[in-house]
Amino acid sequence: MICENIGINASGHLTFSGLDSIDLAKKHGTPLYLLDEDRIRDRCRLYKNTMQECLGGDSRPLYAGKAACFKRMYEIMREEGLSVDLVSPGEIHTAMKAGYPMENAFFHGNNKTDGDIAYAIDCGVGCFVADGEQELDAANRIAGEKGVCQNMLLRLTPGIDPHTYDAVATGKVDSKFGSAIETGQAEAFLKHALSLPNLKVIGYHCHVGSQVFDEDGTVYQDAADIMLAFTKEMLDKYGVQPKYLNLGGGYGVRYTDRDPQIDIAANIRALAVFVKEKAESLGLVCPSVLLEPGRSIVADAGMTLYTAGTVKRIPGYKNYVSVDGGMTDNPRYALYGSKYTIYIANKATAEANFRCDVVGRCCESGDIIQPAVLLPEPERGDIIAVCTTGAYNYAMASNYNRIPRPPVVMLSQGNDYVAVRRETYDDLMKNDI
Amino acid sequence: MICENIGINASGHLTFSGLDSIDLAKKHGTPLYLLDEDRIRDRCRLYKNTMQECLGGDSRPLYAGKAACFKRMYEIMREEGLSVDLVSPGEIHTAMKAGYPMENAFFHGNNKTDGDIAYAIDCGVGCFVADGEQELDAANRIAGEKGVCQNMLLRLTPGIDPHTYDAVATGKVDSKFGSAIETGQAEAFLKHALSLPNLKVIGYHCHVGSQVFDEDGTVYQDAADIMLAFTKEMLDKYGVQPKYLNLGGGYGVRYTDRDPQIDIAANIRALAVFVKEKAESLGLVCPSVLLEPGRSIVADAGMTLYTAGTVKRIPGYKNYVSVDGGMTDNPRYALYGSKYTIYIANKATAEANFRCDVVGRCCESGDIIQPAVLLPEPERGDIIAVCTTGAYNYAMASNYNRIPRPPVVMLSQGNDYVAVRRETYDDLMKNDI
Repeated sequence: MICENIGINASGHLTFSGLDSIDLAKKHGTPLYLLDEDRIRDRCRLYKNTMQECLGGDSRPLYAGKAACFKRMYEIMREEGLSVDLVSPGEIHTAMKAGYPMENAFFHGNNKTDGDIAYAIDCGVGCFVADGEQELDAANRIAGEKGVCQNMLLRLTPGIDPHTYDAVATGKVDSKFGSAIETGQAEAFLKHALSLPNLKVIGYHCHVGSQVFDEDGTVYQDAADIMLAFTKEMLDKYGVQPKYLNLGGGYGVRYTDRDPQIDIAANIRALAVFVKEKAESLGLVCPSVLLEPGRSIVADAGMTLYTAGTVKRIPGYKNYVSVDGGMTDNPRYALYGSKYTIYIANKATAEANFRCDVVGRCCESGDIIQPAVLLPEPERGDIIAVCTTGAYNYAMASNYNRIPRPPVVMLSQGNDYVAVRRETYDDLMKNDI
Repeated sequence: MICENIGINASGHLTFSGLDSIDLAKKHGTPLYLLDEDRIRDRCRLYKNTMQECLGGDSRPLYAGKAACFKRMYEIMREEGLSVDLVSPGEIHTAMKAGYPMENAFFHGNNKTDGDIAYAIDCGVGCFVADGEQELDAANRIAGEKGVCQNMLLRLTPGIDPHTYDAVATGKVDSKFGSAIETGQAEAFLKHALSLPNLKVIGYHCHVGSQVFDEDGTVYQDAADIMLAFTKEMLDKYGVQPKYLNLGGGYGVRYTDRDPQIDIAANIRALAVFVKEKAESLGLVCPSVLLEPGRSIVADAGMTLYTAGTVKRIPGYKNYVSVDGGMTDNPRYALYGSKYTIYIANKATAEANFRCDVVGRCCESGDIIQPAVLLPEPERGDIIAVCTTGAYNYAMASNYNRIPRPPVVMLSQGNDYVAVRRETYDDLMKNDI
């Protein structure tokens, strides 16, 4: 199985987090998002404990909420004592409603509006990750009006390209995010920040990309290398000793058997050794390290269940299995050509020798969950399980074709409960006049 | 200007449907979807009148609601006497709430669930567009249970490829939609339908693709040629004389100056001549023709207004202008690499010599509205107008990054009114438990 929280029980049914997926489909209906809360908590602790142990200081992970954002997730982060990275007032609002302590929140975004900035300051967000000088000016003005001094990390681009998919590689110089070290703009960014009385620079941030594996080389170490050299240069020039070095998110997860299993703890330990040695060699006080895991906390905690409908065999061409969801609940194949592992949950022990495209119900040819998968012979009514859908599925869902978004059901300690209710047809019209 | 409903007024502001876009942005805020109701009605009448004139019988357009689906649209279709094509129970529900006469609705979809079928029959949907034999069996059973005889069009694939973007080319044999004539499956589909007592076959349907222009050749005529030959063969074999030949949607619209201006009336007239001659040559009673325009009714009736935020110049690389929306309200560049024409609405007369990517506010590098556009020198606070966004923008919008969906403001006869309210942060949490 693609993840250790997936199994097969005596009925030949797929299990997830120890629960029978067919029972869950019957109880909650399909399409259905499942999220393994135990797995999420386990990942949170793995990051938190490993970082505390080997990096020390105030080093810690920030959960990147954009991967899966709803109220219950922030309750879990609050309970786990995890800091969070938020990217919009809507995410801030959601965390607030979950009673999340906002001093542990970092506010990201390449284009924070004046309204966003004011809202975040009013909510007591602990730190902004500032993207550019125009944002600094706006934040300084608004913080001044509100009589506060706002903590800031400065988002820089170290010029690292981990060769992940273009749409998710963000550490390159040519990026809508951050200010480039290479062009001298990062230094100008820092100088400008230091000149503004209502802002306090507490560190630097970079993010090299998404779905990064060990085999991409030591991209985090490469990033740290550049960022620490910059830190040293700025210390010498301007006397700035940053408290934090935020190296962003990006550890990869397994979507298929071809993806390696990443050892997050080992990666963090190696990174810690590198960062400490590098800081020492530069004569720097080692900053506390922040990481921003999103996908690697929640992706393989997720599974989507669908009911198979039309099974189409086109002799000489291809076979299709249509499910009762699609690009509305999972647009990642349509957007990125993302890979997924798929099982028929009620035929988990059957031989998978039927080659087909698993497609959605939208009136659009591009509505594909995954092409060319091997399944047992499918029939209308089968339950189709798509694995590793915990990240960027519910978060990216739409109502295209006026299709309601599925509910999110959490699994914990052998129990299931609804965290986000299924949308109704009336929900779709709630703002129609 | 890219469409005749766009202009420039004495203040140098872009106008849309005769209204000052800057006034509209101030009044309703940004991001903001605008829809030109007068243009929509004009297109509806163009299709309806032209088809009635030159095709006669019960020939008519069906508005493909998936292009832009909310309550007000179905009120307009009701007022214009336009039939509609609906693709889900959510669309059916929306049309019902608008008081739309459901006998004029055609229900599409490659994967109608038993629940969908029952709902559509209960709502009195006039006709199904059946996608395959499994759907026929389900519809026959459910119609029988409800004591009705359900009208059916049979969706066939004529094996036409208009060379549009792969994701939107649906007339090929290798498609999740319909049954292929080439493989003999279309005939089997018909035979099966004829054997079912609670269904009545009233015609055939095909859809060759989207964004089809004259220069793609005579694809509708090619499709009609194949469909009529099939009709004749089936008439001879089974005595089936279909009332309708539905040739689907797909006329292209202009996103940029490079797209041709299509003469819809001329295309329909040429199609009518072809269909009538072909039917006559085959000795067929000419069926009434149905077309399913969506994009060509609503796309250039739309414009999206954004406020510019961060303007980023990366020497030696590229410039970026970030707006306060993005792939959440318009995922079409991210999904298809779609082209758009963009203006700075408050600098409509200024020279456009600043080359930049117009990007969204999402924390994702792929969040691009349009790369490499030429704009006047942009500044934070400028109003950015993206044209031809009436189709597949609001319809495909998501809450990724927990960003609320913009409102839809209709423009008619020099007035503006809200048809869909802006989502609030609380709306985002309405189903969070």
